[in-house]
Parts: sequence; C-alpha cells; structure tokens
Amino acid sequence: MSALTTVLLNLFVIYAAARLAGLLCARLGQPVVVGELLAGVMIGPHALGLVGVPSAGVIDLFGGNHALAERALDLVLESFAEVGVIVLLFTVGLETRPSDLLRVGVRSALAGTLGVAAPFALGFALMRATDHPGIESAFVATAMVATSVGITARVLQELGVLQSREARVILGAAVIDDVLGLIALAIVSAVSAGGSSGYEVAIVAGQAVAFVAFVAWAGTHVTRRFSVHVQRLDALTPNDLPLNVSLLLMLGLAALAGLLGLAGIIGAFLAGMILAESSDQFALDERSKPIYEFLVPFFFVYIGGEVDPRSLADGGVLLLALAITAVAVVSKLIGAGGAMWGTGRRSMAIVGVGMVPRGEVGLIVAGIGLSKGIVPEEIFSVVVVMSLATTLIAPVLLNSLYARQRVRAGRASASESVERR
Amino acid sequence: MSALTTVLLNLFVIYAAARLAGLLCARLGQPVVVGELLAGVMIGPHALGLVGVPSAGVIDLFGGNHALAERALDLVLESFAEVGVIVLLFTVGLETRPSDLLRVGVRSALAGTLGVAAPFALGFALMRATDHPGIESAFVATAMVATSVGITARVLQELGVLQSREARVILGAAVIDDVLGLIALAIVSAVSAGGSSGYEVAIVAGQAVAFVAFVAWAGTHVTRRFSVHVQRLDALTPNDLPLNVSLLLMLGLAALAGLLGLAGIIGAFLAGMILAESSDQFALDERSKPIYEFLVPFFFVYIGGEVDPRSLADGGVLLLALAITAVAVVSKLIGAGGAMWGTGRRSMAIVGVGMVPRGEVGLIVAGIGLSKGIVPEEIFSVVVVMSLATTLIAPVLLNSLYARQRVRAGRASASESVERR
Repeated sequence: MSALTTVLLNLFVIYAAARLAGLLCARLGQPVVVGELLAGVMIGPHALGLVGVPSAGVIDLFGGNHALAERALDLVLESFAEVGVIVLLFTVGLETRPSDLLRVGVRSALAGTLGVAAPFALGFALMRATDHPGIESAFVATAMVATSVGITARVLQELGVLQSREARVILGAAVIDDVLGLIALAIVSAVSAGGSSGYEVAIVAGQAVAFVAFVAWAGTHVTRRFSVHVQRLDALTPNDLPLNVSLLLMLGLAALAGLLGLAGIIGAFLAGMILAESSDQFALDERSKPIYEFLVPFFFVYIGGEVDPRSLADGGVLLLALAITAVAVVSKLIGAGGAMWGTGRRSMAIVGVGMVPRGEVGLIVAGIGLSKGIVPEEIFSVVVVMSLATTLIAPVLLNSLYARQRVRAGRASASESVERR
Repeated sequence: MSALTTVLLNLFVIYAAARLAGLLCARLGQPVVVGELLAGVMIGPHALGLVGVPSAGVIDLFGGNHALAERALDLVLESFAEVGVIVLLFTVGLETRPSDLLRVGVRSALAGTLGVAAPFALGFALMRATDHPGIESAFVATAMVATSVGITARVLQELGVLQSREARVILGAAVIDDVLGLIALAIVSAVSAGGSSGYEVAIVAGQAVAFVAFVAWAGTHVTRRFSVHVQRLDALTPNDLPLNVSLLLMLGLAALAGLLGLAGIIGAFLAGMILAESSDQFALDERSKPIYEFLVPFFFVYIGGEVDPRSLADGGVLLLALAITAVAVVSKLIGAGGAMWGTGRRSMAIVGVGMVPRGEVGLIVAGIGLSKGIVPEEIFSVVVVMSLATTLIAPVLLNSLYARQRVRAGRASASESVERR
C-alpha cells in the first residue's frame, strides 16, 4: 500500500468511526463529541490500531525505519486534526462578537484567572505530597491549567446555548485561560532550562497578551472597513471571495499564534471573532459549516487515539491518575465556578464544568515535559488520563445540567399553559 | 518553530499564494488554475522555498535528519493536496450523471483508447530514436499516457460548459484513459521487475476494469435505494447526514481505489458520479462547494511546487524536454482528437486539448521509475517538464477555443437582436 493510500485509508477509517459513533451517541441523547472521542480511543494506535499504523509504503519512504514512519504518519493525521480544531475554534469565534465579550469581561477575567490559579496550586500540592520532584510537579500542575475549550464550545453549540451568559463567560475565560496557561508553561520551561529566566519569560508573556489584545482590537476595525472592498472584488472572480478571505485570515492568525509560541487555536478563534460582525452579511456561518462537517471529526478522533488504555494496568499509576483527575475537576469548579459567585449555583456549576476539559493543551504540555526528560513515562500517562477523563466527563455533566433546565423549562411552560386555561 | 506551526504556516502560504495568483489571473481573463500552478512553481521548494522546507521543529522530530524531515513535511502537504484533488474529482463526478456518460460512450471509449495508444507509441519511438534504453523509454512513454483530467475539469467548470458534449466525452475518456494508463504502468513495472509477468499484469488490469464497472453499476442502484433512509435519519442527528454520507463515500472509494493500485481520484470521481442523481435532492453540489474552496488550491500549488526550474539549465535536457512535450501534445490531438472525427474541427480540438494535461499522473509514473532506478535524474526532470508544460498549455488553449466560440455566439446574438428589430 502506497504512503498516500495509507493516509486516505486512515482518514476514511477516522471519518467513518466518528460518524458511526456520533450517530449512536445522538440516538442515546449524548453529545456527538463523546462518541467521536471514544471512537478515537477504540480505533487508535494503542487499542485496535486501525489508524496511525504505518504501512509498508510509509516505512519504505522513511528508509525502513518503522518509528520514524509512524511519526510521519502521525504528523499527517495530527495536521488534519489541527486544521480541524482550528476550523472549530474559527466557527466558535464567528459566534462571539467582541461587543458581547466585553459585556461579561470582568466575570470572564475572574473565571480565567481563578480557573488557572486553583488547578496549578492544588495540582502542585498533590504532586509534592506524593513525593514527586519540584520541577516534575510544576509540569504536571501546568498541564492541569489550560482548558481545551473546543469540547465545551461544541457541546454548547450542539445545545444551542452559545449566546447564553454562561457560554460567553466560558469563551471569554478560555482566551484568558489559554494565555495564562501559556505563561505558566513558559515560566516552567524557563525554570527547567535553568538559564535565561525572568527576561525571556516576560517577553513570551508580553507577546501573548499583546497579540490577543492587538488582534482583537485592530482586526475588528480593519475588517469593518474592508468588507466593502471584498464585496466589490467578489464579482470579479469565479471563487467565493468572502469565504476565501475568511479562511486566509483563519490560517494566517493560527500560524501567527503558533509563531509567537501560542496555540494555533487562539489565532483561529480571534480570526472568527474579528469576522463575527461581518458574519451575517456574508453568511460566513453557513458557508463554513460544510468545512466544519468534513474536518472537525479528525480532531476529536485524533485526541481520543492518544489514550493508551494499557497505561492503567499499574495500580499506583491508576490511583494517582484518579486523584489528579479529581483535583483537576474540583479545582476548576472552585476556581472558575467560584468566579461566578452570586449568580446562582447553576451558573457557577456550568462555568466550572465548562472549564473542566483539558484535552489537547494538557497533552501538549505533558508532551513537552516528556520530550525534555522532566516528566517520566508513567506520569505522562497520568496526565493523558486526566486530560481524557476531564474531556469525557465535561460534556456529560454539561449535558445533564442543561437537560435539567430543559425539564424545568418544560414543566414551567406546561404549568403556564395550564394557567392560561 | 514547532512541527505543527510549520505545517500551519505552509498551508497559509500555499492558500495565500493560490488566492492572490488566482485573483490576478481572473482579472487577466485566464483560468484561476494557471495562477495557482505558477504560484506553486514560484513558492515551491525548488524556487523561493517558501513551502516544503522543514523547520527546526520538524527536523528535531525526525532525529535531526534533514532529508527525512523534508520527506515528512512533503507527505503532509501531499496529503492535503491529495484530499484536495479528491474533493475536486468528487465535485466533477457530482456533475456527471451515468446516463449522460453512456450517451457518449462510444466516442469516450475511442478517445480514451486512441488517446493512450498514440502518446505511448510516439513517445516510445522518440526515446528510442534518441538512444535511450528500451525499459527507460517504456517508462517515459507510460508517463505520457494518462491525462490528469482535474485541470481540464476545472477549466471546463469555470467556463460553465461541463454539460457540453465535448466535456462529457473528455470526462468519460478520462476514466478509460486512467484505467488504460494504469494497465500500461502495471505492464511496464512487471516487465522491469523481470519476474511475474503475464498473470499478475492480467489480475491488476482485471481489477481496475472490474472496480470501475462494478462501482458505477452497483453504486448507482444502492444510492437510489438508500437516499430515503438518509433523509429519515437526518432528522435524528445535529450533523448534516447527507453531506457526511457523501464525504464518507468519497473517502472510502478513493481509499479503495488506492488499495487496488488505482489512483485515488478514480474512486472519488466514481463516488461523485454515483451520487449525481441524488445531488439535486440533497443540494450536494452547493454543500460541497465550501470544502472545494478550502482544499482544492492545495493540490494545484503542490503540483506547481514539484517543478525544479534549474533542471532546464542543461541544453540537451531542455531540448529533449521540449521534444517530449511537443510529442505529448500532438499525440493527444491525433489520438483523442482523432476519435471525434466527423464532429467538426472545433470538437476535435477541444477533446484533443482537453486530454493534453498530464499533471500528477505523469509525475507519479516518473517517480516510480526514479525510485526503481530505471529512470535517471535528468530524464525525470524531462517528464516533470512535460507534465507541467502540458498542464499549463491546456487551460490556455481550452480557454481560447471557448473564447472564440463566445465571440461568435456574441456576434450571432447581436445579429439576432438586430434581426428582431
């Protein structure tokens, strides 16, 4: 089988598994994303091995080196996953108007900040209490910091509540959360390298904050001015120019975010947010939907495939994984949920739970620790389990929080209709 | 720069270059695809080197081995290109109803067969006449056989003449042409391997023909029956089920074609063709358009990037390249164009020119010859030049053939409106 056929077959298997599992979950009333993640765990290289396993064609291409061939195939699948999550965050951005974001600004900032501080402090304390070295503990604590808002955003999107106050707090907090998570990673990396500390850390941190602020501010103004020109030029080409320009901005800001050491998804989210006010005019929402349908499943199946179920065979590792997961959930409820103090228990629970999934960000941090030789293999597994468990728990909890609301709303409208009689 | 950021940056540069060059070509009245190919030549690894050059992050990932890192990055970009060309042929298939195809069956079969025989015979003769070994000559002749219908299809699509008689002959002939090209490749490969000849060749050839015939026949019947169920299930999921099923079929048949040793695009084209009759019902054309807008440019820029302009520095190589290119063009005009005998010179010219582009198929054949050590470096360059030159010439010629028609049609309608007065 040629390398390219291997890639096509992998993409087919991923897409088929995602769609089948998604259909099943939809029938069971669960979010589609849970099905896609579990499908990923099942078909992934650590379980059934239906994807991510290089064929002879790929191995030949890499001079017979099986490990490098596997890495190359993984890079291909990871690239499709990355483009998928970028498209996802872009569409989430499209539904997030900067003006709406500013309205919940204080709560978002509070939820983002406390939601970072609490997991770091509690995670670090747990690791130190179980006799792990300081720098290893700091890496695990950092991996517990950043929310993977993609999963929450998708659940909220499926539930049709992206316009609610809680959703906007979560999306706003996620931007702050991601930036703070990056700063934490930069600090921990700098400390672990021993060398250039204060100055370099400050630069990375400053870049991150400046990037988000500048892009959000300048982008919105520029877009508003240029939408007239796009409309005029659109008539001259056989292509769909407004969509082309939007996709260009999405890829460009994602790459730029990556160049600044930020996650690509931050740039993609900002690209969407910038365009949010032109979205209705050019029907960008509707036009980007088919791209979303095609590419987003590649991300969730890929993330699921990162899990190695065998890592839990060791009792001690399993116990630590459970403890870390519990701390990861509780600390976000305390931190991010606590930031909603005074808005009612349900709002606190939704924002807290919404910030629970760690997904790819935790995995990236743990991967950096592993590659630097700071985080040992079994602790990496613990972080992977935490990332995946939080990712799997959050959609179910969010769904049930909203289901209860719907039942209550159902009852209310039922009694209302009784009263009307 | 991390490996993933490198990928994102490459995708951004490719997409930006494609869109800028496309916009420029559209303003100059040239097909967008010419701009995308030339953009690819310019930014490709052999010229400006803006794409396809691995960063430190990719090189680190492959243990410091620059060559393997480059190959891995190339595999990523080639995979996006492959998915792009698959989406392209899928949308072409969507506009090709089997019933329409059967109507021009005899002409298509003739154009496909003669369009393969003539380039093989003339190409082989030229190579032998210039003192190249027999097996090397056979490989080059095989690389001159298969039409890359993607480019022609896109030009015809841009011109809005996909429903014309000539377009249907070309699309029908391309399927036959691709199958015959594969059989030629199988025979040449088998002969070059020295060993298992007749039997294996017959099996590969039989599989190819059976695959196309079976999929086209069975697929159309199954789709017709299942479209009712898809509509019923669609209401149960938050996803766009008809689009999902279509994309699944596209990826599945492309992978299956690859597994049978055929080009993936054959499967994708068949998937589109099978769905052509349900296309209106589910608005598949419209729904797949944004995916097309996003992914197809990656293919044409990638193909352009394969050109090494320096390979033409040697006078002898350049001369042979020009001779081979001339033979490649003339032989298709004689073979495929000749099959349209009796339908007028313009129809003959359109079908002949429409089959001229060799694009990726010629490159794949040449690449196989190179990797087997049968085709030397400089002859590979010759084939690359021929593939690219034919690909660049055909859209321009096709465009001018149709432009003349439009001028005439314009005159006719002008005189008509005069008559009406």
